[in-house]
Amino acid sequence: MAITLYDLAGAEADRRFSPFCWRTRMALAHKRLEVETVPWRFTEKDKLPSPSQGRVPVIVDGDRVVHDSTAIAEYLETSYPDRPLFGNETGRALTQFIQNWTETVVQPGVVRFVVLDIHRHIRPQDQAYFRQSREERFGTTLEKFAENREAQLPAFRESLAPLRRTLERQSFLSGAAPAYADYIVFGAFQWARAISDFELLDADDPVAAWRGRLLDLFGGLARKSPAYGG
Amino acid sequence: MAITLYDLAGAEADRRFSPFCWRTRMALAHKRLEVETVPWRFTEKDKLPSPSQGRVPVIVDGDRVVHDSTAIAEYLETSYPDRPLFGNETGRALTQFIQNWTETVVQPGVVRFVVLDIHRHIRPQDQAYFRQSREERFGTTLEKFAENREAQLPAFRESLAPLRRTLERQSFLSGAAPAYADYIVFGAFQWARAISDFELLDADDPVAAWRGRLLDLFGGLARKSPAYGG
Repeated sequence: MAITLYDLAGAEADRRFSPFCWRTRMALAHKRLEVETVPWRFTEKDKLPSPSQGRVPVIVDGDRVVHDSTAIAEYLETSYPDRPLFGNETGRALTQFIQNWTETVVQPGVVRFVVLDIHRHIRPQDQAYFRQSREERFGTTLEKFAENREAQLPAFRESLAPLRRTLERQSFLSGAAPAYADYIVFGAFQWARAISDFELLDADDPVAAWRGRLLDLFGGLARKSPAYGG
Repeated sequence: MAITLYDLAGAEADRRFSPFCWRTRMALAHKRLEVETVPWRFTEKDKLPSPSQGRVPVIVDGDRVVHDSTAIAEYLETSYPDRPLFGNETGRALTQFIQNWTETVVQPGVVRFVVLDIHRHIRPQDQAYFRQSREERFGTTLEKFAENREAQLPAFRESLAPLRRTLERQSFLSGAAPAYADYIVFGAFQWARAISDFELLDADDPVAAWRGRLLDLFGGLARKSPAYGG
């Protein structure tokens, strides 16, 4: 039986743009597990399987409900040990660092570039919730927060230096083949690509070439998903 | 027969302060290999075993000469596979990211705080070389480069967020036990500690607690080494 994934959607049901849901989507494909996705919107708190934390990703696998991309990755690795996501215990521990780097450097960098596009491309009934929750988090209006995004771009690209330098010397963060650490970082780029036409990367950036390799994985799973970016 | 390590020294022969040499020192201890260190100074290019790259660390293991901390770690892992430094191939690949993060974020952050102390604590005959090579690299005088270090401290501590967040949830970067990724990052802190009394971390920072655990490893190898820091 296929695993069900509750997956954040934009105004169109097939526009999937959560960086966290993309981690899970790629992990499921990596494990070659069958999946059926359910589009879910920010304000549909009551449509999630119970017990609910009001957020996605959530997966339902038979009678198991698992919340949170990190818990889902752990669950998949334990329940479906073939095609490892982490390597071994050291790889699992180091993947935590990659995740924390992504969540303290990459995602906070990306959000300024795409936050107005997110607001633009979700349903009207979700916009008020999105604006209020994000303006509370950022401590300012979405418009103010997103100001001068071109001027922020050099610092953002510079912040990717450790990723860039690594990808100059190996095809994937995880080495010759991709694994969960790649999917974590890729989620941030696929988030931007799905919801915004703002280009984060120089065309000749090794990070752009790596993103291209990730887009091609699993029969072009991420590349075929609706996106405003190239 | 013990492995010989050429190890950067300050004015005193037993003050060892290279971040790269500390990676190697910890890796050798991790593998429980016997080592004899040879103090080496910046201007002693002709005292290194040949073929020489004019830099340390260099190890001599029987008839093998290996340069560069990364090449040395690879050599040790291949020649002495017990007590792995990386875990497996995924761990090795992710360790590259940690190294690149250390070299693009942590070490460039630390150097401003300690560069004048390095200059102060090396031999007079090495000071001119150090000043000239570093001023060329930084594009300004050492004094200008090191200005207002207190004012730089909050941004430096903030740049450690991915490390801090990881160490809030696990004892070492590499998980329950330390491995080479820990030694890479630790090298930057032991560099500062050996040569400077400037305190990089808040006492209650989880990064400081982790540094303490690294200082205690291998019978207090790093803690017992001469240091101006606590």
